[in-house]
Amino acid sequence: MENIALSFIALLCIFYGVEGYINYNTGSGVVDGKLNVHLVAHSHDDVGWLKTVDQYYVGSNNSIRGGCVQNVLDSVVMALRRDPNRRFIFAEMAFFNRWWDEQSPEIQEEVRKLVDSGQLEFVNGGWCMHDEATTHYIDMIDQTTLGHRFIKAQFNKTPRAGWQIDPFGHSAVQAYLLTAELGFDSIHFARIDYQDRAKRKADKSLEVIWQGSRTFGSSSQIFANAFPDRYGPPDGFNFEVKDEYFDPVQDDPLLFDFNVEARVNDFISAAMIQANVTRTNHIMWTMGDDFQYQYAESWFKQMDKLIHYVNKDGRVNVLYSTPSLYTDAKHAATNESWPLKVDDYFPYADIPNAYWTGFYTSRPALKRYVRLLSGYYLAARQLEFLMGRRSISFSTDGLGDALGIAQHHDAVTGTAKQHTTDDYAKRLAIGALEAETVVNSALSCLVDSKSKGQCGDAASTVTFSQCQLLNISFCPPTEGDIPQGKTLVVVAYNSLGWNRTDFIRIPVNHHDLVVKDSTGKLIESQYVEMDSVTKNLKELYVEAYTGNSTKLAAKYWLVFPASVPPLGWNTYFISQKGNYIGKNYVSKLEDPPEKETIEIGQGNLKLSFSLSSGQLKRMYNSKTGIDVPIQQNYLFYSSSEGDNDDVPQPSGAYIFRPNGSHPSVVSRSVLLKVVRGPLVDEVHQKFCSWIYQIIRVYKDKDHAEVEFTIGPIPTNDRIGKEVITRMTTNMATDKVFYTDSNGRDFLKRVRDYRADWPLTVTQPVAGNYYPINLGIYVEDKKSEFSVMVDRATGGSSIRDGEIELMLHRRMIIDDWRGVDEPLNESVCVKNFCEGLTVRGNYYMSINEVGKGASWRRTIGQEIYSPFLLAFSRDNSEKWKSTKGTTMESNYELPCNVALITLQEMGDGSVLVRLAHLYEGGEDKDYSTLAKVELKKMFAGKNIDVVKETSLSANQGTSEAKKRRMSWAVKGESGSEADAPIRGGPVDMSTLIVELGPMEIRTFILTVGKRRSP
Amino acid sequence: MENIALSFIALLCIFYGVEGYINYNTGSGVVDGKLNVHLVAHSHDDVGWLKTVDQYYVGSNNSIRGGCVQNVLDSVVMALRRDPNRRFIFAEMAFFNRWWDEQSPEIQEEVRKLVDSGQLEFVNGGWCMHDEATTHYIDMIDQTTLGHRFIKAQFNKTPRAGWQIDPFGHSAVQAYLLTAELGFDSIHFARIDYQDRAKRKADKSLEVIWQGSRTFGSSSQIFANAFPDRYGPPDGFNFEVKDEYFDPVQDDPLLFDFNVEARVNDFISAAMIQANVTRTNHIMWTMGDDFQYQYAESWFKQMDKLIHYVNKDGRVNVLYSTPSLYTDAKHAATNESWPLKVDDYFPYADIPNAYWTGFYTSRPALKRYVRLLSGYYLAARQLEFLMGRRSISFSTDGLGDALGIAQHHDAVTGTAKQHTTDDYAKRLAIGALEAETVVNSALSCLVDSKSKGQCGDAASTVTFSQCQLLNISFCPPTEGDIPQGKTLVVVAYNSLGWNRTDFIRIPVNHHDLVVKDSTGKLIESQYVEMDSVTKNLKELYVEAYTGNSTKLAAKYWLVFPASVPPLGWNTYFISQKGNYIGKNYVSKLEDPPEKETIEIGQGNLKLSFSLSSGQLKRMYNSKTGIDVPIQQNYLFYSSSEGDNDDVPQPSGAYIFRPNGSHPSVVSRSVLLKVVRGPLVDEVHQKFCSWIYQIIRVYKDKDHAEVEFTIGPIPTNDRIGKEVITRMTTNMATDKVFYTDSNGRDFLKRVRDYRADWPLTVTQPVAGNYYPINLGIYVEDKKSEFSVMVDRATGGSSIRDGEIELMLHRRMIIDDWRGVDEPLNESVCVKNFCEGLTVRGNYYMSINEVGKGASWRRTIGQEIYSPFLLAFSRDNSEKWKSTKGTTMESNYELPCNVALITLQEMGDGSVLVRLAHLYEGGEDKDYSTLAKVELKKMFAGKNIDVVKETSLSANQGTSEAKKRRMSWAVKGESGSEADAPIRGGPVDMSTLIVELGPMEIRTFILTVGKRRSP
Repeated sequence: MENIALSFIALLCIFYGVEGYINYNTGSGVVDGKLNVHLVAHSHDDVGWLKTVDQYYVGSNNSIRGGCVQNVLDSVVMALRRDPNRRFIFAEMAFFNRWWDEQSPEIQEEVRKLVDSGQLEFVNGGWCMHDEATTHYIDMIDQTTLGHRFIKAQFNKTPRAGWQIDPFGHSAVQAYLLTAELGFDSIHFARIDYQDRAKRKADKSLEVIWQGSRTFGSSSQIFANAFPDRYGPPDGFNFEVKDEYFDPVQDDPLLFDFNVEARVNDFISAAMIQANVTRTNHIMWTMGDDFQYQYAESWFKQMDKLIHYVNKDGRVNVLYSTPSLYTDAKHAATNESWPLKVDDYFPYADIPNAYWTGFYTSRPALKRYVRLLSGYYLAARQLEFLMGRRSISFSTDGLGDALGIAQHHDAVTGTAKQHTTDDYAKRLAIGALEAETVVNSALSCLVDSKSKGQCGDAASTVTFSQCQLLNISFCPPTEGDIPQGKTLVVVAYNSLGWNRTDFIRIPVNHHDLVVKDSTGKLIESQYVEMDSVTKNLKELYVEAYTGNSTKLAAKYWLVFPASVPPLGWNTYFISQKGNYIGKNYVSKLEDPPEKETIEIGQGNLKLSFSLSSGQLKRMYNSKTGIDVPIQQNYLFYSSSEGDNDDVPQPSGAYIFRPNGSHPSVVSRSVLLKVVRGPLVDEVHQKFCSWIYQIIRVYKDKDHAEVEFTIGPIPTNDRIGKEVITRMTTNMATDKVFYTDSNGRDFLKRVRDYRADWPLTVTQPVAGNYYPINLGIYVEDKKSEFSVMVDRATGGSSIRDGEIELMLHRRMIIDDWRGVDEPLNESVCVKNFCEGLTVRGNYYMSINEVGKGASWRRTIGQEIYSPFLLAFSRDNSEKWKSTKGTTMESNYELPCNVALITLQEMGDGSVLVRLAHLYEGGEDKDYSTLAKVELKKMFAGKNIDVVKETSLSANQGTSEAKKRRMSWAVKGESGSEADAPIRGGPVDMSTLIVELGPMEIRTFILTVGKRRSP
Repeated sequence: MENIALSFIALLCIFYGVEGYINYNTGSGVVDGKLNVHLVAHSHDDVGWLKTVDQYYVGSNNSIRGGCVQNVLDSVVMALRRDPNRRFIFAEMAFFNRWWDEQSPEIQEEVRKLVDSGQLEFVNGGWCMHDEATTHYIDMIDQTTLGHRFIKAQFNKTPRAGWQIDPFGHSAVQAYLLTAELGFDSIHFARIDYQDRAKRKADKSLEVIWQGSRTFGSSSQIFANAFPDRYGPPDGFNFEVKDEYFDPVQDDPLLFDFNVEARVNDFISAAMIQANVTRTNHIMWTMGDDFQYQYAESWFKQMDKLIHYVNKDGRVNVLYSTPSLYTDAKHAATNESWPLKVDDYFPYADIPNAYWTGFYTSRPALKRYVRLLSGYYLAARQLEFLMGRRSISFSTDGLGDALGIAQHHDAVTGTAKQHTTDDYAKRLAIGALEAETVVNSALSCLVDSKSKGQCGDAASTVTFSQCQLLNISFCPPTEGDIPQGKTLVVVAYNSLGWNRTDFIRIPVNHHDLVVKDSTGKLIESQYVEMDSVTKNLKELYVEAYTGNSTKLAAKYWLVFPASVPPLGWNTYFISQKGNYIGKNYVSKLEDPPEKETIEIGQGNLKLSFSLSSGQLKRMYNSKTGIDVPIQQNYLFYSSSEGDNDDVPQPSGAYIFRPNGSHPSVVSRSVLLKVVRGPLVDEVHQKFCSWIYQIIRVYKDKDHAEVEFTIGPIPTNDRIGKEVITRMTTNMATDKVFYTDSNGRDFLKRVRDYRADWPLTVTQPVAGNYYPINLGIYVEDKKSEFSVMVDRATGGSSIRDGEIELMLHRRMIIDDWRGVDEPLNESVCVKNFCEGLTVRGNYYMSINEVGKGASWRRTIGQEIYSPFLLAFSRDNSEKWKSTKGTTMESNYELPCNVALITLQEMGDGSVLVRLAHLYEGGEDKDYSTLAKVELKKMFAGKNIDVVKETSLSANQGTSEAKKRRMSWAVKGESGSEADAPIRGGPVDMSTLIVELGPMEIRTFILTVGKRRSP
């Protein structure tokens, strides 16, 4: 018996050559003619989720989750140094940056070598792995730029691969803009619809060539790799330290349980399963999972062995690889042509009945805060640049960092735990506070005549403050009394590239004030009586947010129009009436007169309301003649608790699953009051005790502004509720509606239909929800009905002619996707808590068919970039030339172009991004080549160098173009049908930038000293 | 607000000097005048427990427990290399050895540097961290030697500290022999009785000077450090990767939750608590726990920070340390005198009602297997040496390794999971098989006249086999028919240093065989009818153990006396009667004659049995006149299920907790049969269906041998049972009894009493149990009554005059000490399983008071080292001079000395250990200086070099002596009262070794070529 046992071991030793120290042969590259298994070592490190980003980084709060990114990076570096064949990819620069700053120069030097050699490769390379459903493209660009610039500065590298493995569905903008336009060759992800996945596995179309842009077509196509399963390794190949299923390759014949042959066979079986659903003889194994590689050697040791023994076996070839090397290998398969994919991968369901469409709306307050600060960050960076970065002690960088983190796919999505969400909000608030300091300083400098526009280190004499809680009428500088002889100064900054007139609303306590503009001219104003809902909100939320109680509510909204030049400012002075004898217009909240229909709107747009229902019944534009019956109401879906399934699937932070397909109407009889005045008409509607709505029609505006106040959503019946606003028209929309992709392109949606596979409908409501960041519209042969949003929102058109937006949601159980908390937001003051109330706006417009785009594009930009308001109390005598712009006077950008970035970089250069706002063919006038004159934009400055770069400003456009891969697409001839319009190179003498439809061009400028005046 | 927040961070930066990379100052040594906190980084790595040793090593089977020692050693080496101030200690060489063999030469070189510099220090350094209750001192020495020799060979180092942190109580032999005699200065451990601990904390006597030996007194004292709590760090300072309570020092002011000050304060608080129960200004923090340091950097990073910031704070001083450095610091406190501790730390209870005295008996079959192979290993090594190690392909090393592992404090203790226990048994079986090959070869060579004692590479013509299952009558070579003209050859090898006569029992199928000795002389034999209990056992267990069914049972035991020279052999020939006309003596199992008392024993010793009770009632020795009424019975304690406690404490693998203090009698009326014959009288007693006992009195032996067969213990009443044999005499023992320490010294035990503290009795039975490895005895003014055991066993004297031994236990619930399985052993054949039956022996003797020692010492040694029997079938003509010894003929060791090691080492040198068997004053004749003549022991060989070493043979005695620390002991004058008798240096010309009482002397010899005859 012993002889047999011992001879077996001896044979094993001879066959595997093992005993004592084994020098594993890990140096395999790709081997032609064999199945190549690319091991891609990675750790998926959420920038906050169950724990805050810093807790994940340092490894605290481990009772929730044992993640520690410090360990990942420390140990990966050690492990990579042990064998030059080992490779690792890392994505989240918010973490890497934290780690990098703490390293010794020696370790930094080692890491630079690892990056240089390709052992450590950055993928994605943004600050976080952003969400793709609830993010705005400008935020996506900003957070990616933050990471890419860091990588470029520290390592002189440009990432090549998109690595969006966890986000809950994938957007068209991600594909063409945040992949192709970044210079990436490929994108890799795990989450696509389960039906889609099944079909793609069956016909080997998980890997596709994705053309995300209708406008750009094949010129922005990329290789897109949807994994056959999650982003972890095949079962049995997780080698995380302490992992319950850790099954090591035991190759020491002197120990028991020698299993080399068995593990090699396991490996090959798993590889063959994947090979059977994959084109070419290259497959990728994602060797990692959430917060894994806590002790990287644990993984690499086993992967070393697998590479050694499987390659010795010879049936397949295994190698350490990365997404880039994998893409190279795919690309090298020149006789393969790839399936084409257009549009996007929304909505996402992982199993029947589990549509991840709840998160489109989850935590609407956070979503609004992120969007609000996104626009604010854009404006603040302009002001920072205008003043000069070095002249102040604070910067907008903190806000950039906080916003970068907030784009994470468990941040703005609303799918983090409450304490983590609080942390995101805290970071944003701190960032906003710092940016506010920058803005206040810059405005002081710009408007202060004493400084003559020379913003230097000398402190300005003017002190500004801002009001973050203006929407609930909290603004101490405007609320307080204005003594005789003193003035409340209101500065409005316009971050758009266009001249703009808009209405300013500030809370005041008296109706005997007058408003003058910067020339001293009196301007028309209107006082609107403050509603009690706003007063109550103010009382509760000001105490909750500031810790100070504020019993006094302002009595009025003072409304007045402001006109501001592009990238410029204007100043308004509010003071006591004094000897002015005109009468101020004070609008009371009044009961409507007793007739069946009341109408508001003094300009082209009229809205009619039924007095019997209290609801909107019609919109009519007298200029265009478009006249659409529209009923609008609030309803809620009762959240499913999932009881009736095999796998119970409740509605939760991620998942929207109504309990039945029909929502309940909140109220059939709505209390209605009316406000009328020279500047604005309003209808106030109380749908129920917890839903209040104001519809405003401003003078000279062709759209209606809807302000909703929803909450606390009652759950004392122990049933979650998901509240929608539903607009019902009589339009024949034939199942079709349009929603935007990350606030940029509009995609056509067809109810109960997917272009890529024959859809089995399990959830007729949730399965038709799509993310909305800019707006949603429907059209018939005559009209378009468009609704624009102020934040990320889920929406759909569940019946023809309808549009619905989900505005708020609250539930009492978790949906089993890991967050392990019900989405049940509350606000607390002392020991009193109640469900969160959410206030926000949406905007409705009716247009002739084909004409809606120009409204959507312009108003979309205005919603994103409202006036930035700052306040000061001063003697008005000091203010002289207080309207201005730093652009050449009378120059403005074409109205189809937005300046989406103007930022002074740390190195003194200036980052400029210009975005054409229209898709190809979207508008006959505006979907055309546009021109921007940089010299006029930067009036008074010398532009010394203009370097055009890829989207994230980490490489020249020519470098990116050089590397561009071409791919054979199934059924395509290869010759472009309609080449997209793109601007030509910038002539360095004229400095005119041309932009074709949807084009975003990024420049790094070196701007010299001001010319002498 | 922001200014305040940011200034605070700025202040922190200034105070702590932190931002970006921090070069932690970890270089502190001891600082006089401050409290010094010695951080001792360690990982407690059980050599098998919940998983097998190899599973723990490679990290498989993680669903049970995420331990992976490979990770510990890999990552510790990496971590130590990062900072030369970091230190780590490692104990278990069975693990280290596995790891070492797999390392590259480069890593080995790095590790050598780490060991050289003291960064990596081996503590304990044995193969495992042996148990101290159920281990035999020879096994303890062997397993320690295995590790120490490895360390010496690879690193030229000798460990300085005992590190027995986890064993469940601590023995006197551990203190003086396995600590002092190894050359250690100190021993460190965690588990002492909770009452003892409380008292020691109160009077600062956790740290003591321990004199474990009555014989050696202060000459073998050591510094013993009992931890104030477990062997982990203070709460909140566990820094294991992924640990739930991981609470890092967050010292990056740019991140949230900066906590340096708080963590420094936590540290100092915890240090002060410990300082308050500790003498001198040095305390030790044990920074580690079970299988921790999976990713060592996780610990060291935090310890680096603590050292840096706490030392910066300055209130206390923290340093990386080791037990040796800690002991040096204690020793340097020259004006401190230390409390004295004698005897041992048994029994151990961690909480009231939780006496860890169950494991003294748990898994009696494993315990016997270990003890059996321990004696076999001793004999096999002798034979290996006698033959010469290089001449065969197998060695005894595998058995040494398996036995080394089996001494682990969750192995022989019986506290491992069943699958791990199976693994221990498998390792022992494989080791035994290999050793059997060695033994068979050596015996072939020694007895084969053709080879003329020249054991070379030439294969011998004789093939031997052995019978491991002889105790259940399974021995194919003896059971089979012996054809006419053929002979069954039985070789008996005597590993004792004395001439010896004993009885051989082998199963045979015929009663017409004759036995001849090596001179051809016929010798007397006796056939004893095979009992049906043994037949049934054989049928079940042979199939269970070998996989082959054996329906045929041998009909008889053939018994005959054998006489064998010291370290020698004799050969017996069994063949058909042929023309021999004498009558063989066949003893039947007979019903006793109908009278009240029956008596057995043909020599001095008589045993009387009551026919009415069926039980023993008296032992009488006609030579000494000692006459003791003794009743003997089997009883069982019902195991507590712990229901009535606040913290329920059931009986289990570790803990003995009877449900009430009175055991149940198994039977009051025992079925009794008698066997009589010329060589042996036997009484067979059937106490119940699952307890069978045979008491044998052999001709010329002054003791009774008891063979018990217990099982399956019935548990169909869902109550665990713990079976004892109880011997009740009428002796007035006044609460006193004596039990051995690891088979060596006898310690006085007093019922319901502890010398070190006023005992609160919670468990009147379990709290009086002590471990027994050699024997237990009681005495009164006239007599001694001694019981010797064949394995580790728990026992006590619960009432005056009584001795009880717990022989088997089976329960149905776990006792919550981690093993998470009830101790419920079973044996299975195919699909049939039943509770394990255990068979074994114990030995009873009565002696005049003061005379028992010589019986106990001699018979103890014979029990440990029975004849080694080997069998061959052959033509007897071939056998000529088949009795022999390699010692000088007629030389034998003095009967107070045992040769406990004779082993050829890997390097060709020979390891010899001689042990004086008597304590000082134990016996008036034998507790004296003894002399051994090495020249006569090694007759026929040249002894070229004799080097005396410390016990584990890793250093010269003079080196060990040089380093010996002296300690001031409270209340001791410092002058030795009675200096112990110790042998002097060995005269190199005479080569006579002197041994004082209890002395063990270890030598490494270089033995030259044989002299020409």
